[in-house]
Parts: sequence; C-alpha cells; structure tokens
Amino acid sequence: MTAGVIGVTGYAGSELLRILSRHPKITRISAASASAEGRNIEDIYPNFLSALSIKLTNAASVIEESDVVFSALPNGHAGALAKQAVEKSTPFIDLSADFRFGSDEETYKAWYGTPFLDAETHKKSVYGLVEVNRASIAALGKNRETEPVVIGNPGCYPTAISLSLFPALSRGLLSDGQIIADAASGISGGGRELLRAYHFCECADSFSPYKIGSHRHTPEISRNIYFMEKDPPQKQRPVIFTPHLSPMNRGILATVYAPLNKNEKLSLNHKAPRPPAREIEEQTERYRRLYASFYENDPFIRVLPQGALPATGRVRSSNYCDIAVNVSQDGETLILTSAIDNMVKGAAGQAVQNMNVIFGFNEKDGLPDAPAFF
Amino acid sequence: MTAGVIGVTGYAGSELLRILSRHPKITRISAASASAEGRNIEDIYPNFLSALSIKLTNAASVIEESDVVFSALPNGHAGALAKQAVEKSTPFIDLSADFRFGSDEETYKAWYGTPFLDAETHKKSVYGLVEVNRASIAALGKNRETEPVVIGNPGCYPTAISLSLFPALSRGLLSDGQIIADAASGISGGGRELLRAYHFCECADSFSPYKIGSHRHTPEISRNIYFMEKDPPQKQRPVIFTPHLSPMNRGILATVYAPLNKNEKLSLNHKAPRPPAREIEEQTERYRRLYASFYENDPFIRVLPQGALPATGRVRSSNYCDIAVNVSQDGETLILTSAIDNMVKGAAGQAVQNMNVIFGFNEKDGLPDAPAFF
Amino acid sequence: MTAGVIGVTGYAGSELLRILSRHPKITRISAASASAEGRNIEDIYPNFLSALSIKLTNAASVIEESDVVFSALPNGHAGALAKQAVEKSTPFIDLSADFRFGSDEETYKAWYGTPFLDAETHKKSVYGLVEVNRASIAALGKNRETEPVVIGNPGCYPTAISLSLFPALSRGLLSDGQIIADAASGISGGGRELLRAYHFCECADSFSPYKIGSHRHTPEISRNIYFMEKDPPQKQRPVIFTPHLSPMNRGILATVYAPLNKNEKLSLNHKAPRPPAREIEEQTERYRRLYASFYENDPFIRVLPQGALPATGRVRSSNYCDIAVNVSQDGETLILTSAIDNMVKGAAGQAVQNMNVIFGFNEKDGLPDAPAFF
Amino acid sequence: MTAGVIGVTGYAGSELLRILSRHPKITRISAASASAEGRNIEDIYPNFLSALSIKLTNAASVIEESDVVFSALPNGHAGALAKQAVEKSTPFIDLSADFRFGSDEETYKAWYGTPFLDAETHKKSVYGLVEVNRASIAALGKNRETEPVVIGNPGCYPTAISLSLFPALSRGLLSDGQIIADAASGISGGGRELLRAYHFCECADSFSPYKIGSHRHTPEISRNIYFMEKDPPQKQRPVIFTPHLSPMNRGILATVYAPLNKNEKLSLNHKAPRPPAREIEEQTERYRRLYASFYENDPFIRVLPQGALPATGRVRSSNYCDIAVNVSQDGETLILTSAIDNMVKGAAGQAVQNMNVIFGFNEKDGLPDAPAFF
Repeated sequence: MTAGVIGVTGYAGSELLRILSRHPKITRISAASASAEGRNIEDIYPNFLSALSIKLTNAASVIEESDVVFSALPNGHAGALAKQAVEKSTPFIDLSADFRFGSDEETYKAWYGTPFLDAETHKKSVYGLVEVNRASIAALGKNRETEPVVIGNPGCYPTAISLSLFPALSRGLLSDGQIIADAASGISGGGRELLRAYHFCECADSFSPYKIGSHRHTPEISRNIYFMEKDPPQKQRPVIFTPHLSPMNRGILATVYAPLNKNEKLSLNHKAPRPPAREIEEQTERYRRLYASFYENDPFIRVLPQGALPATGRVRSSNYCDIAVNVSQDGETLILTSAIDNMVKGAAGQAVQNMNVIFGFNEKDGLPDAPAFF
Repeated sequence: MTAGVIGVTGYAGSELLRILSRHPKITRISAASASAEGRNIEDIYPNFLSALSIKLTNAASVIEESDVVFSALPNGHAGALAKQAVEKSTPFIDLSADFRFGSDEETYKAWYGTPFLDAETHKKSVYGLVEVNRASIAALGKNRETEPVVIGNPGCYPTAISLSLFPALSRGLLSDGQIIADAASGISGGGRELLRAYHFCECADSFSPYKIGSHRHTPEISRNIYFMEKDPPQKQRPVIFTPHLSPMNRGILATVYAPLNKNEKLSLNHKAPRPPAREIEEQTERYRRLYASFYENDPFIRVLPQGALPATGRVRSSNYCDIAVNVSQDGETLILTSAIDNMVKGAAGQAVQNMNVIFGFNEKDGLPDAPAFF
Repeated sequence: MTAGVIGVTGYAGSELLRILSRHPKITRISAASASAEGRNIEDIYPNFLSALSIKLTNAASVIEESDVVFSALPNGHAGALAKQAVEKSTPFIDLSADFRFGSDEETYKAWYGTPFLDAETHKKSVYGLVEVNRASIAALGKNRETEPVVIGNPGCYPTAISLSLFPALSRGLLSDGQIIADAASGISGGGRELLRAYHFCECADSFSPYKIGSHRHTPEISRNIYFMEKDPPQKQRPVIFTPHLSPMNRGILATVYAPLNKNEKLSLNHKAPRPPAREIEEQTERYRRLYASFYENDPFIRVLPQGALPATGRVRSSNYCDIAVNVSQDGETLILTSAIDNMVKGAAGQAVQNMNVIFGFNEKDGLPDAPAFF
Repeated sequence: MTAGVIGVTGYAGSELLRILSRHPKITRISAASASAEGRNIEDIYPNFLSALSIKLTNAASVIEESDVVFSALPNGHAGALAKQAVEKSTPFIDLSADFRFGSDEETYKAWYGTPFLDAETHKKSVYGLVEVNRASIAALGKNRETEPVVIGNPGCYPTAISLSLFPALSRGLLSDGQIIADAASGISGGGRELLRAYHFCECADSFSPYKIGSHRHTPEISRNIYFMEKDPPQKQRPVIFTPHLSPMNRGILATVYAPLNKNEKLSLNHKAPRPPAREIEEQTERYRRLYASFYENDPFIRVLPQGALPATGRVRSSNYCDIAVNVSQDGETLILTSAIDNMVKGAAGQAVQNMNVIFGFNEKDGLPDAPAFF
C-alpha cells in the first residue's frame, strides 16, 4: 500500500515520513514538495540519510499513485487537493486547519480569512480526534470505495486540551462556568519557516505567552467542548485559551481548569488555614478512576496513577496523551493536565492513527513506541 | 556599611552576594555558611573568583559585625536569628517563608509544619513586597534604632502573581469569583540541593506541572489577594495556584485569570463566530493605562505597551517585573501575565530593594541594570 | 526468546528496555534491579506506563530465565554475573568497562582500580565494536552452545572516536604523530546518580571540558587505535582525549585530528594568504569516498556527503554513527567528525547490535529507526 | 562624554548599549541603525524598556555628536565610517573584521572578498586585544587629538584562543609543531539575522561542527599566534581551527592543543599502563603559575586554580576570560582551555575595554561585574 504525503519540507510532513517509514502496512511512500520537487528527502532532512530514500514529486503525482493521501501544507491549500483525492476515491487526511470545522464555514472564515473551496466536501469531512470520533471515522472508512473520506486532523493544542476534558464533559461533571485552558508548547509548533520569534536566541532560555485571546485554535477548542458535553448549552460558551512558548523542541502541556457542577462540588470549610487533604484526595481518586475507565479502550491515552503528573519529556516522539486529574483545594474545580508530543499525537501520529482506523488496521500500527525517558 | 548574609551556599544567597557586591552603599560583606565555614566563597561559587573575596564565617559573627542582616537559609531557621539581630537593633531581612505570614501562626503551621519561635517578633514583622507595603517598610526603617525591623521577603511565585493583580484588586475591578494563577518557573526555583527532579536529564527539554494544589506559596498568594483587595470579602477566597517547571535556569512567568465584576464586564455577542476585536482592544487599553498609571512611581514595574507580552528572558538578572494586561474574548475575565527573574525580583533583588527602603537609599541602588536581551 | 537486563534503573538499562521491547525476535524481557526489586518498571520510569510492563526481579532470576543477558550495572559488577551466565551457556553482554580490555588486566587495574575476578573469562571475551570485530563476534555466536560468549560493549566516547578513525588507520593513511580526540557529550553520559555537576543549573546553558587527561575512556581509545592500525607501532602511542559537557540530554560529537603520513600530505604553499581550496577539496573527496566504500556494508555508519557535517540532533535515538571527513587547510591533517547518540550507538543500541550478530539476526533488528529531525 | 554606536539592531550593538548605559564616564549614548532610524531602542529590544531610552538616528549624526564611535555593523562597512571619525579626531572602535588585519590587505581580501577602502587608515589602526596590545592602544589614545585612533576589535574565537596561548608563545614554551584550536560557541555568535541554522529546532538540543577549515577567524588566529610568539618562524604556521555550535545563548569555550618544545617535554614511560600522575601534575602546576604570574596585571584574565576548569556559564555576561592550563598524559602537549562570553569579552565588553584604555579610564569601568553563577 502506498501512502502519499504532500508538503514534506515542513516539520509535520517530515515527522509523517518518519512514522510512515516504519508502518507495517505501508510498502511505499510517495512525497511531494512544491519548493523541493526533484530533490531527495535526505537533502532537505539529513536525518533520513540512508534510512529513507524518496525523490520528491508534486501533488498531482502523489494523489495519482497513493492509496491514502496526507496533506501537511499550510492552511488554505487542502480544499483543492481533497477534491482530487475524493474524485479517485482516495482517503484524504489533512493536517492543516482547513477541514477541522466540518460545515461551519462561518467560523472558519472568521478565524482563517478564506471561504471554503467546496462546501460539499467539507460537509462530509470528519474531525479526526479518534478518541471522540472513532466510530464516525471507521464508518467513513468502511464506505471508502463509494463515499468521500476526508479527515480534518486536529490541531495540537485542541488535541491535548480536548482529551483532558472529554470524560468530564461527556459524563456531565461540569457546570456551565468558564473553562480555562492554559498551555505551553515546544518551539516546533511554530514550524520551519524562519520567523524572528523562533530564532534561537529570541526564545531559548525564556518562557512567554503569545497570541493571548487570538490564537486560531480557540474556536476549535470551543467547538470541541460543545460537542463533547453531555448536555450542551444552547450557545457555545467561550473558552479562555492561553498558549505559551517553552524553550524545548517538542511537546505540549495543557493545564485546564473546569468548574464542577453543584452536584459534584465539595462543601469545604474555607476558613480552615489549610483545606482537608483527605476529602480532596478521595474526590480526586474518584475522578481519576472515572477517567481511567472512560479511556480503557483507547490505546494512546494514559491516565496517570494517583500522585503522578504528566511531563512532555515522558511522551516524546510517541503518540501517547498522558492525563492527570486533580481537584482544586476548595473542591470546586477540576484541574486537568495533559501532555502530548505536538509533532506526533498533535500532528503526524494522530494522522496515522486516523489512517489506521479508516483502513481497519490495528490502531497502534506504526505507532507502537515505548517512549524514551528523555 | 557592612551587609551580612547568612546561608550563602544556596542559589539565593549567592545571588545576594552578587548584587550586594556592586551596591554603592555597601562597603563590606560578611557572609556565613554552616556547611562551608572557613572556606572562601570562590571555592563554593567559582564565578566569584577574583571578583569577590569573602571568607565564610558563622551566623553569630555575621550578626555581630553587620549593619543589616539577610538570611537565605531554608524555612525554619530565621526565628532565632531574627531575635539576635533585633537585640542589637540590626534590621533583619529573611528570604525564607518564616516571616511571610505576620502574626498568622496558624496558617504558617498548617503549611510549614512548625510553630513560631517568638510570636512577638513575628507580630512586628512586615511582609516585604515593596510595591504594596513601601510605606510600612519605610516607617519601620525610620525607627530602626528603637524598634525591631524584621522583613519577610516574599516568595517568588507570590511576587509575580501579586504584582499582576494588585492594581485590579485595589481598584475594585474584580468580582468575588475564582482567581486562577498558573505559573512556570525556571529550575533554579528548586534550589541547589540535589534532588532527582532537578537532575538535568529529568527536567531538560520537558515541561511539567508539579505540586498541584499543595505548593506552599498558595496561602501566601491567597493572603496577598485578600489584603490587596479594595473591599476584601469576609473570608479569604481560595485561589487556585498551579506551578510548572520550564527547562531554563531562571525566571517566573505567571498567567493569572481574574473575573471582572459586573460593572466592568462587556456584554459581547457570544453567538458571533469571532468576538469583536475593537471592543476588547479598547477595554484592554483602558486597563493597561490604569496599570501604567498605578505603577508609575514603582521603578521596577514595567507595564508593557499595547500588544507586547512579557518573557522571562527579557528580565533576566534584573529586578524588573514586566506586566501585560489582556481581557478574555468575552470581555469577562482579566488575563494578567507577568515575568520576573525568580532569583532577583523573586528573591535576592527584592531583598536588596527592601534594604534600600529601610535605609532610605535610592530604591534602585545596586539594582540599576538594563537587562541583556538574552 | 527472553532477553534479560540486569541494572535497569540507570539510563542505559532503561534505554535497553526501550529498544528490546520492539525487537522482533524478543518475546519476553526479564529485568533486575538491586534497588528496585519487586517494583514495576513504570514506577521507576513513568515513560513506560502501559507500553512496557515488567516486574523487576534479581540478577540470579534474570540469568536463570534469559537466553541472552545484558548487564547495565556500574563498573566492577560484571565479572561475577558473566561467570554465572557462562556456566549456563548464555551469551553475556556487558555495558560497563569490565570486559572492554580483553586479557589486559594491568591497564584495567591501573584505570579502574580493581583486578579481574576471573582472568579466564576475560581472556575469552570480545570487544563489541561490531564494525571492527564483527567476524569475531559472529564466530563466538556460532559456538555459543559450547564456548563462552562474553562481550565488552564499548564506551560511548571510544565508539564515536574509533569509528571515525578506523578507515584511516586500517588503510595506513596516518603517520605516527599525535592523534587528538576532542569530544562533547550530552549530560546523560553522567548517568542517573545525583551529582552536583549534573544538577540542572550547574550545567544548563554552559559548555565546559572535564577530566582533562584523566577520563577512563582514554586507554580504551588508545588501545583501539593500536589494534585498528595497519602497521601498529611497537608501543601504543598516547592519544590525547578531551571530553566536554554540552547542555543537552543526548549525543556525542567527536572531532578527531589525525596526522597524515608523508605519502598522503599535500605540499601546499604556506605563504599564500589563503590555501588553495580546490586541492583540499579534491583530497577531501578522495578520503570521503574511501570512507564511504570502507563502510558500505555497515548499516549503521553513514559517511556524509561532501560538505555535510554531523550533528548529534540528527542521530537522536538511533543507532547511527554519522561521519564526515575533512582535511586541514595545509593538507597535512585529517579532521574527522562523528556523531552518535550516546545512549544508543554509545550504549544500549550497540549492545543490541552485538546480540543481533551473536544470534545471527539481521543486524538492524530492533534498531531500524529513521531518526526524527529533532 | 557621549558614546556613539552605529548598528544597534544586531546582538553585539545591543550588548554595547547595555554596557555603555552603566559606564561611569558615559553620560550620553547616541545610536544609529539604518533599518530602524527614527524608532526607539526599546521597540527593537524590549529588554531596554524604561531602562534605556534612545531614539535611533543615522551614522552621520552619531559620528557628529560622539566623543567615541563604535561600529557594530557587518563586515565591509567600517572603512568609510572610520574615515569620517578620523577626520574629526574621534576615536573609532570597529567590532567587525574590517580593521583586524592592520595593513595586511592581501589576507583580508583573500578571506573577506573586498579590498580596503583606505589603506592609510588601516595602516595606522591597532588590533584591540588589550592584553597583548595595551601599550600600543594607550599610546594611540594619548595622541588622539592629533593622530587617528582606529581599533579593530578582535573576533570572539580569536580572543578566547589567543589569550589561552599568549603566555606559552611569548615565553617560548612551544615547538613549531601544529597548533590545534577546537572551540564551541553559543548560538548568538550567528547574529540576529534569520538563518535556518539558527532556527530553534535546527540547533537546540544538538551539538555540531561547522565551517571546518573555512571559518574566517582562522587567519586572525594564525596571525595572532605569529605575533605573540617569542621567536616567530619565518613563515606563519597554519593553525587548525574547528568551530562548533553548542545549544546555548552565549559563550565560547576554546580547547587548544599546543606542542611543547623539546626543552619542556617530559620523558615519560609510554609503556606504563597509566602515565605517572605526579610528574604531570608538577609540570602542570609550573605552567599554571607561569600563566597566573604572566596575567597578574590583567584584570579580566582569571587563571584558574589547580584542578579547576573553565565553563562558559561561569563567565556569563562578564568580561572575564577564564583559562586553565593542563598538560597531556605524555607530557608533550599543552592543553589550554579558556571561556569567555562571546558577546562581552568576545565583542562589546572588549570594545569598551579598548575605549577605557584609549581614554585612560580604569580598565574595569563599566565592566565590574561579579558574574552570576548561572
């Protein structure tokens, strides 16, 4: 089976090649780059020397000869490619934001500035957060000979944040209060394009927020919360999302604050100099078990044991999402922390996970790694 | 004038020596270390070679020969030293948590496990967050010949978080809703003691939360919020504080979410695909100006210009606290971000700032640096 | 087939588990730790949670139930274990220095301070630098039912340095002049034991030499040079080896200066303001081809194309050794640069490579990775 | 006194502003930037906010109103500016390579590609390595009213390497054998211009050599060796210089191998399994003392005590050059290691040190820092 990747000079495209190259069902990789057509991949990414030998072609060739097509191009390019893939009944998995909003063109336009190329394809596309949409993705896959298969692979921040909230939302633990998602990303989230902010001396040995209130992943997170919720409110509630840059290559760590509803809240004595640890621990352990049970059939979600907390370094280069459940000292707010590798579960790994579900492969095929400790 | 430092083998003590060594009013430094008595400072900290030559003695000698005494010992040791300093009318500035709780022994005991040694001294001590307590500290200083001068130098996280909230709280902008303080620290916050968590390969190239709901700075932050508030509620409201470790030597970046009260909130249309940028910007700029005006006489607070955000790398080795003011997309929550160098404004620099106020020096003496860009 | 690992709480042992867990021929892993007997590996290394489930036992049990035994204990413990493995005809691969010196007890004692436990086993052991000793290792493996198989897995620095020199030495390109090996290692080379030098703030954002003239890898490098040389001199010539610490988790980069013999030297005009680039380039390309041809059957050696230079980040988590060949501006000295991952080709990966050769597996089994770009 | 800086948008220019802003003799700074004329410095470098307020002008204005002019422009721009400064008898200190080669236009052209603009000015210029040329620089300064004062501020690598070799060369300890200078630099050495090699993910967590045999600092190092040598050979001997990139912001660490002459060499027994430590230590200590005595009047050179080694982190943001002296295990080669901050002693600090000598100020004015430990 041939996997095609369009846009391999970016970091996500390169990571896709790395993962696909050891996928047991993929026998051949076809790859395209507009800027490097005709060159060999190891000239662009020397890490691949002697490990992966691919001569880069163009998008049309890749679509022509592939059984599944991944696009790792910047936002705004996937519509036309999806159409070509759909025409030849080839599943299309897009790593950009283009197909993350289903038929909601209005939101996409408001945040990304361009209209949909082909509303029909968007309408049939599915948002590829496998843990939430596995059944829909598999259903698409089963009818792939006759129906279009277009997947909008989730953004990196929305993946980490949504997975941390999914059990609480779908079990109805939360009130309709404000949800706050605070997150930090490694610098690779900024891509390979040369920008001052990602020049080594501008970001190394420094930690900073960026794009407060204006990061494009905000509406994706907000929409996910709405759809994952047991009893969604009439209107979306605006999530607060604050991204930060941490001086490291890879990883996203999300810290999410979600208000418990009144049935769940503890009534702790606020006047005590320190809240009673036992009640908090018991409540925490109850939610932890709920999370563990909720995700027990999801091979890439690791709900951490009591007392443990996630760290981006412990999921490095793997498709895992590590989640810890905590409760605030007053027993009123869930504090969810989750860690992913932004290049893998936040991009290329999740795309391959989608492919696995579409084609009925084992979901861990090509993604079996025990991560290294560092 | 002789400055004395007790406990110089830790990072904060070492940073104090660095700052005091170029203070225009300090002509001599006396330093003590229980573990390194009799050795030279450059044997412990080779960076000081030929720049600073001090033979380490013991606490008693330091108190005996100094005109001001700093203690950079771990929690639990300052009580006895303060007493000795007070007996000879020498101002005492403690960098541990011992004197951060004034007369509130109950809270201190609940979080730090030990009772006060001498309740009387604690009662007279002042919390050394200069921007909030400048007048009280100066008043103490004026009577230093006759009255005890004991300063509890603030914790690093409480400094960054409290300074970001002070204008909003004291001007009554906030509701009584939940305040959330999310923060990241460089690894030096963990001190020089060898602990697995701070071994290079355990924390480098990784980002993680720690001590969720149990960090000892929580009650200090909560107390500060209470006292800074215009109309403090009858009981303290529990702040949620989540610290993280970022793979860098220095710096703290706090991101604080504070709910605006109903007079301040905008009524924005939640159904729009994207909130109206102009209203948010105007509201933001109004608060930014309020902050800038509020802090205009505080030489170490830099309220950033519109659109700018703080980064720990830009305050490195300086006593600055950089603050940016933002408003959430629904106009209901203030998002405050602040950056300090945890070793300087979060420890040694702030201690020297306290000394400057006590002795009536220029507040910037010894702390005049234009920080380097990296 | 069951692989046994003794000493899994150290970084190299942990890395061995990671690699063995995906080795196609290994169906079961047995692991021992003196300090953590009875615990699960994910309690020691949380990265393995749900990816690898092993209850740690003791050395005797591991040797009893394994078909191959790896020891990742500190120096000085392998002798006794090797004996036990040999008694039950189980191949034994030691990652410490204990079996790196063959029968040369004198050198081992002079540098490591202890005598051999059992000179006979040492005499039969083979130094496991596969690219140099593949035939001997394979021969040992073929007779593993009847003859002892004990492998001294090479040190990390000697691996990077020796592989860069091997073609030049064995083809007789070098004079008997001084060889200088200058190298930098990531901090993981210092192990997991808590030492001040590897505490984050002591080594982060700083570069420094260490153990000049006294690093224990020196005699191993010197011995390798002697044995790899076409016409070895009567006595070993003392190599100069200078290790450095670079602020990163993994990787070794060696820069080796080797004087060409008089037949190889160019006679360039030293008075020119700049040496003639063309002659140097041609000479360089000639050696580069020699190297590429020399290593063409070694799957883990990548001789880089003209103009490219190795970087530790490009071999991360892989078993590759990247080598570049350059010639000094006067045409008299070979400048060889090589990069490995110190935890993989410099330790655990090379140990698995040895196992593959011993058992006649494909040499890349378990080690097939296209490295990530970062 | 007004100091002028031309080219302040680069890292070295920015560092110059930081240092000059606290220089006791500088009352005003005038600064120019072709790309940012009319803007305020804090818009380019936010670290300067409220610490340094300068409106950027152009080169002509700066030269017009300054009592000393620094140029931190890229190579090739200083000739014309020097001429203008000289015409109004203003000392000119150039941080580029333009004036590092005195009257040797041939070498400059061969490596930098352009001829001298005005050979006369070059002829009168002095190479600003103060420890070597202090007397010449001071003499220039004394006649500054009547004679041109143009200083070529040394390159960062040549500074670290030359200072490590100066005592050995000038005391005639070395043979005429090959000198090898191996060095590692922080990423700031690459400047602020956006280049792929300095994009965070391309160089973080990785160590690599670059420009082997072709770095432009090579002829500067080679020339320095020639001039520092007691009995220089008839022709320059080609030094081997290999630069590396280490993943950190600042710092250069040089490791220099210099062959002792036959009077200095020890005759050690090469056949011993380990060289006799005592002889080596005695020889080392003898050279260490020679170095310490040699540099005893140089306030920025710290010859480290026996057993200590330099680290870039220990000289951070200071003008120190830390040097350690070692001898190879066979007693035949000096191994010199030196650390500087490439932005300070390797650029801006050294430029200010030159100014201090020219104007007869205390050499440490503006550069008095005890460096922080990290």
